[in-house]
Amino acid sequence: MAESVFAIPKGFKAAACSAGIKKSGKLDLALICADKPVECAGVFTTNKIVAAPVKITASRVSQGLCQAILVNSGNANACTGATGLQDARRCGNLVAESLDIAPQMVAVSSTGVIGVPLPMYCFEEHVPILCRMLKEDQFDGVARAIMTTDAFPKMSGRTIMINGQEIRLLGLAKGAGMIHPNMATMLAFVVTDALLADGLLESSLRQAVNSSFNRITVDRDTSTNDMTLLLASGDAGNEEIVEGSPGLGQFDGALSEILLDLAKMITRDGEGATKLVRIQVNGAANDDDALLAARSVATSQLVKTAFFGEDANWGRIIAAVGYSGAEVDPDQISLLFDDVAMVANGLGLGSEQESLASEILKKPEFTVTIDLALGKGSDYYYTSDLSYDYVKINADYRT
Amino acid sequence: MAESVFAIPKGFKAAACSAGIKKSGKLDLALICADKPVECAGVFTTNKIVAAPVKITASRVSQGLCQAILVNSGNANACTGATGLQDARRCGNLVAESLDIAPQMVAVSSTGVIGVPLPMYCFEEHVPILCRMLKEDQFDGVARAIMTTDAFPKMSGRTIMINGQEIRLLGLAKGAGMIHPNMATMLAFVVTDALLADGLLESSLRQAVNSSFNRITVDRDTSTNDMTLLLASGDAGNEEIVEGSPGLGQFDGALSEILLDLAKMITRDGEGATKLVRIQVNGAANDDDALLAARSVATSQLVKTAFFGEDANWGRIIAAVGYSGAEVDPDQISLLFDDVAMVANGLGLGSEQESLASEILKKPEFTVTIDLALGKGSDYYYTSDLSYDYVKINADYRT
Repeated sequence: MAESVFAIPKGFKAAACSAGIKKSGKLDLALICADKPVECAGVFTTNKIVAAPVKITASRVSQGLCQAILVNSGNANACTGATGLQDARRCGNLVAESLDIAPQMVAVSSTGVIGVPLPMYCFEEHVPILCRMLKEDQFDGVARAIMTTDAFPKMSGRTIMINGQEIRLLGLAKGAGMIHPNMATMLAFVVTDALLADGLLESSLRQAVNSSFNRITVDRDTSTNDMTLLLASGDAGNEEIVEGSPGLGQFDGALSEILLDLAKMITRDGEGATKLVRIQVNGAANDDDALLAARSVATSQLVKTAFFGEDANWGRIIAAVGYSGAEVDPDQISLLFDDVAMVANGLGLGSEQESLASEILKKPEFTVTIDLALGKGSDYYYTSDLSYDYVKINADYRT
Repeated sequence: MAESVFAIPKGFKAAACSAGIKKSGKLDLALICADKPVECAGVFTTNKIVAAPVKITASRVSQGLCQAILVNSGNANACTGATGLQDARRCGNLVAESLDIAPQMVAVSSTGVIGVPLPMYCFEEHVPILCRMLKEDQFDGVARAIMTTDAFPKMSGRTIMINGQEIRLLGLAKGAGMIHPNMATMLAFVVTDALLADGLLESSLRQAVNSSFNRITVDRDTSTNDMTLLLASGDAGNEEIVEGSPGLGQFDGALSEILLDLAKMITRDGEGATKLVRIQVNGAANDDDALLAARSVATSQLVKTAFFGEDANWGRIIAAVGYSGAEVDPDQISLLFDDVAMVANGLGLGSEQESLASEILKKPEFTVTIDLALGKGSDYYYTSDLSYDYVKINADYRT
């Protein structure tokens, strides 16, 4: 993924290095830094076991200002007790000292193995160096440094014009553990040079997260370490974006697109995944039911293994809808793989359709559409297939 | 599994044959038959998509009397619409005609592929033959004939003395799909010669199912075809077992033991499973929380793959407790693998304990005990590990 694809929002620099936290010697420590304290918003894990860096960052971000984000991979600093909190604070202090900024302006974030204290000597030695390495063109290094089991770095960006003024957004993410409800950490960092009125950043971020990271089978409410941070430097020179303005709609649209791009990349990079599948539910009694049904299908291991086997096993999909809790009339359901109808009025349409569908299943990306024919509720979920490699990656993770 | 291990309750016969429903030519059709209409109780799937045989059998069993159970594997007769209902009725009628009993006295049950009409010619040809094959010593054949992806047949029995009178119970089950929330069908049939007062059978069965099949990660509320039937011939010659009597406690105890035996066999036979793990949660704020936490750990794919990898990855277990919804104080949790303490007060106890625990993980059966130190709530769940073979079996199921 070439850095040059995306324009870097004004007012931000980044750096990444190998600090020795990962045994492999790969990039494992990164810093994103604004030229001054900037507006920020965050969304954090809802797991009751919360990693030390999440506790500290959530508290700092709630003040609405942030200047730097220090992220490491290789160690989650979770279930590490008082030592973990002390270590996370020390990580932030190292950045604050090197950059001569307030410790409260530093967000810290970690991902990796749980229950092992951070190797602080790695941070003591490398954070000062990292702070001297900050440059505008180093965001691709950050995307690499936050990877754990990810197969590829994940970046997305948009440049939009609001009232004739160019505004840039750039997002980075990591995450590759595919199966809800589980704990593969999802981290995402978005920077923009837009200037927004007070308080808008938080609602924009929540809405964008809801239609992206909350619609894939890595659920942000499950890991001990999940976080999504959005920093806005205001350096684009745009007229302030205010509530109810067309500009806010454009900004929210671009932000949602970036997060959905990243969410789909995370799903496609599901551990061992070979396919990205959209589960679209229409005709539900209401939107809540549509989400229930879509999530139930998307998280069914039997459905996901059938996708891996390229088996158009619609019975498993229908059964997952049946136990989803959504209102269902078994005799009304219809189901398509892309545009190939497989089920109408609850009945399979036969082997000719099955062989057409099995061609769809061979594609790396397709949509399963389920129509419940009960109302106007609709929603979607993205999922991946479940392969041998998922088991391999997760059985061997710590070895 | 030798038939002779278990005493056959008086008043029942059985038969099994290969009717050609399975392409493999293995046993796929079975009949259990009482000498006369007997008391019965049933527990059925709560999936909203209900297979035809479940609809018919649930209705018949609700009358409280049953004489015969016809079961086939290889085809679930689910999502088969009006034809499916007609076929299921016809299956029952074939038994009724051959045995000259009322169609209402025949329960029907199916397991296998969804969405394909039953091959009725197999039933037309073989049910009359099956009815002539009924013998007391053919229950092991039934246990084999109901297998789908099961690696071994599942039977358990108990002989108890109530007031000096011998009473026999015999249970058969199939089920090997391991992962909640999913649809691997679980069937169980229990016959006993006990004589019980009216209405007791149903409550005994519900209580026994709740402590067994509802405590493994094949959930009976998820498949389209799940059913558990209990038939009591009353032929033991015992004094009627009545509410509140010590005899009822003995009967319930034996029934629960049989169903738990079968449930553990099903878990051990989890598709591709190599381990049976009991997740025991103690010290929860209440029993509901204990169940939430135990189920969350038992159903975590990351925990199950770590078991397969024989990795004492307690961080994944703690995280699964954290997102379970149960009340948790992260600094109070302790965790053991069998008798090896891994976590105390939320902190890992170090590498020495980890190496002791890794020996436990090599065992085919062990217990993970989680103490939340908040109250007196406790509950348990049985689970299996998640292996390469799970994926293989389910990706290739229909091919």
